Amino acid sequence: MADASRQLFPQSLRNADSQAPVPRDGPGDTGTAKPPKGRSAWERGCSSSSRGKRERRSPSPSPSLAVPAPYLSTFTSIPRNLLALSPQIHLQKALTEEKQVSTKTSAADLVTETDHFVENLIISVLKEKFPSHRFIAEESTAAGSKCVLTDSPTWIIDPVDGTCNFVHRFPTVAVSIGFAVNKELEFGVIYHCTEERLYTGRRGQGAFCNDKRLQVSKETDISKALILTEIGPKRDPATLKLFLGNIERLLKAQAHGVRVIGSSTLALCHLASGAADAYYQFGLHCWDLAAATVIIREAGGTVIDTSGGPLDLMSCRVIAAGTREMAMFIAQEIQTIHYRRDDEN
Amino acid sequence: MADASRQLFPQSLRNADSQAPVPRDGPGDTGTAKPPKGRSAWERGCSSSSRGKRERRSPSPSPSLAVPAPYLSTFTSIPRNLLALSPQIHLQKALTEEKQVSTKTSAADLVTETDHFVENLIISVLKEKFPSHRFIAEESTAAGSKCVLTDSPTWIIDPVDGTCNFVHRFPTVAVSIGFAVNKELEFGVIYHCTEERLYTGRRGQGAFCNDKRLQVSKETDISKALILTEIGPKRDPATLKLFLGNIERLLKAQAHGVRVIGSSTLALCHLASGAADAYYQFGLHCWDLAAATVIIREAGGTVIDTSGGPLDLMSCRVIAAGTREMAMFIAQEIQTIHYRRDDEN
Repeated sequence: MADASRQLFPQSLRNADSQAPVPRDGPGDTGTAKPPKGRSAWERGCSSSSRGKRERRSPSPSPSLAVPAPYLSTFTSIPRNLLALSPQIHLQKALTEEKQVSTKTSAADLVTETDHFVENLIISVLKEKFPSHRFIAEESTAAGSKCVLTDSPTWIIDPVDGTCNFVHRFPTVAVSIGFAVNKELEFGVIYHCTEERLYTGRRGQGAFCNDKRLQVSKETDISKALILTEIGPKRDPATLKLFLGNIERLLKAQAHGVRVIGSSTLALCHLASGAADAYYQFGLHCWDLAAATVIIREAGGTVIDTSGGPLDLMSCRVIAAGTREMAMFIAQEIQTIHYRRDDEN
Repeated sequence: MADASRQLFPQSLRNADSQAPVPRDGPGDTGTAKPPKGRSAWERGCSSSSRGKRERRSPSPSPSLAVPAPYLSTFTSIPRNLLALSPQIHLQKALTEEKQVSTKTSAADLVTETDHFVENLIISVLKEKFPSHRFIAEESTAAGSKCVLTDSPTWIIDPVDGTCNFVHRFPTVAVSIGFAVNKELEFGVIYHCTEERLYTGRRGQGAFCNDKRLQVSKETDISKALILTEIGPKRDPATLKLFLGNIERLLKAQAHGVRVIGSSTLALCHLASGAADAYYQFGLHCWDLAAATVIIREAGGTVIDTSGGPLDLMSCRVIAAGTREMAMFIAQEIQTIHYRRDDEN
């Protein structure tokens, strides 16, 4: 297990306190962005789910919840097995095969047997290791499971992000696993299945693509910016008008370009790597955001609500950017598209 | 040279008559799509640029222009050196560096010193080998060179497709080289620089990604289709309205999704590989289209004008699709955005 951890996770992710935390941005992005004091909830969450409740955004740890290093090593090696091996083998094979495609909330909201298979695979392994942990996962939620984030250690899982791409064999597909304790996002791993790139971020310990440290763009000027967004599942005329109107506003503001790649999590990984300057979307879910939020913040970026206020993971709306100035410009520019909150379902 | 050819080019591209031609679609895509009779103009173009003029779309060959096999081998090995080695090294390095960015037709129409460097590199090597051949290339045209396709053997070059992506280090960047003789597109090579994928197509001999044969999607139903497009360089309100209106039409027709990845040539390669069902664009140029057109047609696809008529390589508009039905549906659905022809400049 220690070997598996070494193979995949950068030193900073294996060794909790080995690197200085990446400075965070100011008000409006304070949710999970503060550097940890002592051991993070990620480590604390490994030993017990029955810790005392803390106020959200108050990361002061209890020493009694500290995790012995060997256990941490085992813990951090698990996502490698989950993300890089079994799902990859299954997804790579499934990409080349005919798929049984069903729809969910709209004709463009697709799901395949692979989404279910990979989700069950990830949850079953994690449940065995951490029987007290909770799970929020895309297909379980679609099947009626409650989607409520509590203080308990919670895995937030998108088994196949970019399902429409996956159905079409368009090679932009990812598995995303975020982990939260006390409603704080602690760790995120996103695996780009076709390119075999693993994006990882751990609160206070930086973000990486494989072994390369990620750093967001420092651009503040929209006229020099590359913007990412996604369409979302709604296709009613009013939503389409708002969606396209928002793109129009940013292009009229002379953005260099707008890209739509079909995977929220991978778009957010591009942002984390500095390959784009901002991302915004209405209609994405907590499982699209959880892992990516940690990764972007650990790469020095901002993740906020589309109103300009703090991110609400359950609100189905987000702006992420390399700089706070860019995020706030977009917040002022775009019009809201209403989606039901994840925890209203 | 023979070894270099073997390393890169599939057997069908090294051995002119080794495979049956891929069947082509019907009227409206007859331009360069007919299977060759005997040796193609690609091979004939290697030996002389002073062959007798032929009517366009009349590929009957003259036996006297046949090319000896060793010469063909040398010829087909050249793009490997041009695409996969020098430009790759230069582009990979340049991707990580600060760039001197200039604008051309609009604030969103970017060019870097790398575009010029790679274009000069490709042309200088080809000129040395083929002094009588002509060249149409993006940056030379921007600098004032005539952009007219004649019957002479002509290389049509986009040194960095996806320059905006390149400027932002967004990893969707390609080098594209097409080759035409007697105004027929004979060969195309597109190199995805960051993923190290080489897409190749040769008239009548199939299309490949590295060594894997490409096959377009057979989808005819828009409600099951993934559509690709690009914004183009114009940012005036009327153009943006038309551009976004076209996306709206296709989404209202219940297309699964629309993707905008920032590289026309790579979007067209995705189409050729069956990862999307259609592509359309106004404002792309002959250097975006030349190589990709051969590759798509050799993968079994359709490439036509946005009016539904035959492709005009110089018209700056295109619909490409896996099936003719899909292409014609899109032709009927979208509104024209006017761009000046390449040969009017």
